Amino acid sequence: MRLSKPNIQLNEQGKLRHFLTLEGLKHHHLTEILDVAQNFINEETGEIAKVDSLHGKAIMNLFFEPSTRTLTTFEIAEKRLSADNVNLNIETSSTKKGETLLDTLWNLEAMMADMFVIRHNESGAAHFIAKHVAPHVHVVNAGDGQHAHPTQAMLDMFTIRKHKGDIFDLKVAIIGDVQHSRVVRSQIQALSILEAREIRVIGPTTLMPSHPEALGVHVYNDIAEGLDGVDVIINVRLQNERMQSALLPSEKEFFNLYGLTNERLKYAKPDAIVMHPGPINRGVEIDSEVADGPQSVILEQVTYGIAVRMAVIQILFDNAASIKGEMA
Amino acid sequence: MRLSKPNIQLNEQGKLRHFLTLEGLKHHHLTEILDVAQNFINEETGEIAKVDSLHGKAIMNLFFEPSTRTLTTFEIAEKRLSADNVNLNIETSSTKKGETLLDTLWNLEAMMADMFVIRHNESGAAHFIAKHVAPHVHVVNAGDGQHAHPTQAMLDMFTIRKHKGDIFDLKVAIIGDVQHSRVVRSQIQALSILEAREIRVIGPTTLMPSHPEALGVHVYNDIAEGLDGVDVIINVRLQNERMQSALLPSEKEFFNLYGLTNERLKYAKPDAIVMHPGPINRGVEIDSEVADGPQSVILEQVTYGIAVRMAVIQILFDNAASIKGEMA
Amino acid sequence: MRLSKPNIQLNEQGKLRHFLTLEGLKHHHLTEILDVAQNFINEETGEIAKVDSLHGKAIMNLFFEPSTRTLTTFEIAEKRLSADNVNLNIETSSTKKGETLLDTLWNLEAMMADMFVIRHNESGAAHFIAKHVAPHVHVVNAGDGQHAHPTQAMLDMFTIRKHKGDIFDLKVAIIGDVQHSRVVRSQIQALSILEAREIRVIGPTTLMPSHPEALGVHVYNDIAEGLDGVDVIINVRLQNERMQSALLPSEKEFFNLYGLTNERLKYAKPDAIVMHPGPINRGVEIDSEVADGPQSVILEQVTYGIAVRMAVIQILFDNAASIKGEMA
Repeated sequence: MRLSKPNIQLNEQGKLRHFLTLEGLKHHHLTEILDVAQNFINEETGEIAKVDSLHGKAIMNLFFEPSTRTLTTFEIAEKRLSADNVNLNIETSSTKKGETLLDTLWNLEAMMADMFVIRHNESGAAHFIAKHVAPHVHVVNAGDGQHAHPTQAMLDMFTIRKHKGDIFDLKVAIIGDVQHSRVVRSQIQALSILEAREIRVIGPTTLMPSHPEALGVHVYNDIAEGLDGVDVIINVRLQNERMQSALLPSEKEFFNLYGLTNERLKYAKPDAIVMHPGPINRGVEIDSEVADGPQSVILEQVTYGIAVRMAVIQILFDNAASIKGEMA
Repeated sequence: MRLSKPNIQLNEQGKLRHFLTLEGLKHHHLTEILDVAQNFINEETGEIAKVDSLHGKAIMNLFFEPSTRTLTTFEIAEKRLSADNVNLNIETSSTKKGETLLDTLWNLEAMMADMFVIRHNESGAAHFIAKHVAPHVHVVNAGDGQHAHPTQAMLDMFTIRKHKGDIFDLKVAIIGDVQHSRVVRSQIQALSILEAREIRVIGPTTLMPSHPEALGVHVYNDIAEGLDGVDVIINVRLQNERMQSALLPSEKEFFNLYGLTNERLKYAKPDAIVMHPGPINRGVEIDSEVADGPQSVILEQVTYGIAVRMAVIQILFDNAASIKGEMA
Repeated sequence: MRLSKPNIQLNEQGKLRHFLTLEGLKHHHLTEILDVAQNFINEETGEIAKVDSLHGKAIMNLFFEPSTRTLTTFEIAEKRLSADNVNLNIETSSTKKGETLLDTLWNLEAMMADMFVIRHNESGAAHFIAKHVAPHVHVVNAGDGQHAHPTQAMLDMFTIRKHKGDIFDLKVAIIGDVQHSRVVRSQIQALSILEAREIRVIGPTTLMPSHPEALGVHVYNDIAEGLDGVDVIINVRLQNERMQSALLPSEKEFFNLYGLTNERLKYAKPDAIVMHPGPINRGVEIDSEVADGPQSVILEQVTYGIAVRMAVIQILFDNAASIKGEMA
């Protein structure tokens, strides 16, 4: 599913203009995001900076799909950068009046938006919008269909780097619905670009990718084998929709086969970290003992999500300013 | 439909205290708004200013009628003036608990509101509220029933002036539902005050005003005649409600008779501009070729709407401060 | 109904860390809130200050129960302190996805929340959350079940002190549903702590407390007797739910027996003030003549509510900073 030439998100200098997907990005693009995010965190206190850098910039959060968690983290990130932000729940907007998506978009753009943060249940929505915005407007993909959720993947990378140093040389196992998850798609791309030594995906065949080799991952149907010796375990939320569509038997059966328990955690390296994009289903894909245990870094991920989203937003504006500077 | 003495919106110096309607205002009132709006726009870049002038002022947006577009433009205008704003969707508020509108109003006023921006489906709602607020509180009408939508009309005037210089000596044609549209009512008043040479309204008799001479407009049932030689064409959204109430045959038939096409555009002056308050119904009142064509200034209107709303808000506060200054 | 040791809201210095209930607080805790609130009000103009003191602090308003009035006053208070605030309507959030309350809470906390303002229909919700937040996070109870609404009670005390000077030596009568009202529970506690001379509760037996002596109040079923010679009358909103559950006959009958009319007002001292937490039911618990009359201070209460909430929020952060300062 290559939705468009990935370089739509790069400017003529090869720098990020939008942030739509990790596909086609280079090691240095990702590293820059991680480094800028790191600078927003006070090393000593763990507090995240409040800065004035985007004073006067207008960011519109266009959420076509309901979301509390992702919307709230973007809102907080934008406020910590001192941008003006407006939330638009598009289901209740003038699209009801028959206006097309592009008309809505152009109207919002004409309201002096400098950036759109977009969540949509259709794959490719953020790309579509990025193709049609004015040159000075930035687009950030906050999740589109089954396609990509790149800021989530980047906060995962940040969390791994924080605990394990370089991602290079790590073995990472992802348990769950790899086939349908935009989060996992982006995680795999990020891990590949940052040259993780091995990427494993674990789950029932119905939820595994059809062409794992194309993704550069190894499939394991057995969780014991899949977790053997890994440095990082990423647990993914099990969607109820999958059960309803008969791709999965039942929550209970899934937990019996693939639920992450303390016992199974022992297959991994003793210092392996456990991650989850949240919200977690206790007793479905993860046992409470693990979620709340010493190897879990699930809540750190949330905090780093603020810093990483601040970094992405800041970088997009900085890259535009640097082009302007050159032209001046 | 004279809802109240228009001068409720003027203070003892004859300056705007509220902004409820254009009825009864003078040329200089409108020109001041256009001039202040112009000052908020960077001539070179087209960017709209972010200023600190209303730091510490509290503006409450009271929307009794759903709206994304108008609410968002007011929100953005308020943030660019650095006011604190709060949105209240009154349908979900304590009016449910049986509180009267005035009790709700007085309570919000007691929360240190400095300004109410009001949208309501009843004509006269903003006037009613303006009559009952405390002396230091300002009211802006963001659309009331079929009565008025003065900030929309002012952004239209701004757009015309931007493209045509003075409004004086221009021929302006308004196509659509003149009889029921608060936007058109306000546009006609603005055009009259700014002394447009000729104001034409075009549409089927069922949608035309019953006493056009009282409004100072000329009615045309034929679009070719109506557009002949005009400088400005204002297209108005066709409300589905009109069709349902049998005032109109069908969308298709309306488009056949009054839809603005490139062909019909030729009746107007070659440099005529095409305006629409949005959201547009492509293929109903306007053809996509025209909406997206070189003579369309529809999206500019949206941008100017931010600057014009900033101007209205700023002027109301400035006028109050100038009175205070005199008394001191 | 003692939900938890009250001192969960005090830090090791005995100062407020959270603000959950008035139970267990000392005279000086309440006086400090009243004094700080006073400082936020300009003595001359009555205007409430806009300060920068909480620049960079993130406050999350978690409203599990719908509310316009209380939410709006908190929002405004937070903005006047220059905090960043985010409103979360939790009914539409990921709790739908099966996440537990604590998981939601921990996630929000990990988003760098410095304070939660919580409203919940279950008694003890704010205590529960306060017990589980990180050490640096503050919790303010904005109303929990039938348990407490401490900021409402404090704004009432502020209003009384403003009009009557010291609360000491005053006779206060509360009319209405004492048994089920969280507002009244908190009011009685506040009046006790501030040593009001006499606290009377007036209403039908079904709405009176079962153990008045434990609360330190005197019950009056007759309103004439209850109001005799009091300095302050607090009217409480009659909940429709009570009527439905057959605890009350009808609105009309309640008004006949206990409605506050100008005639009944004469039983109280001539300079008695009339208060109501709002929203008022005109003609049910209070007559419009009284609500809008010269002895009514109902709208002042709303204004003071902003200042009092600012004071509570500011004090919680100041107390934390003072501990940090000591440790440094």
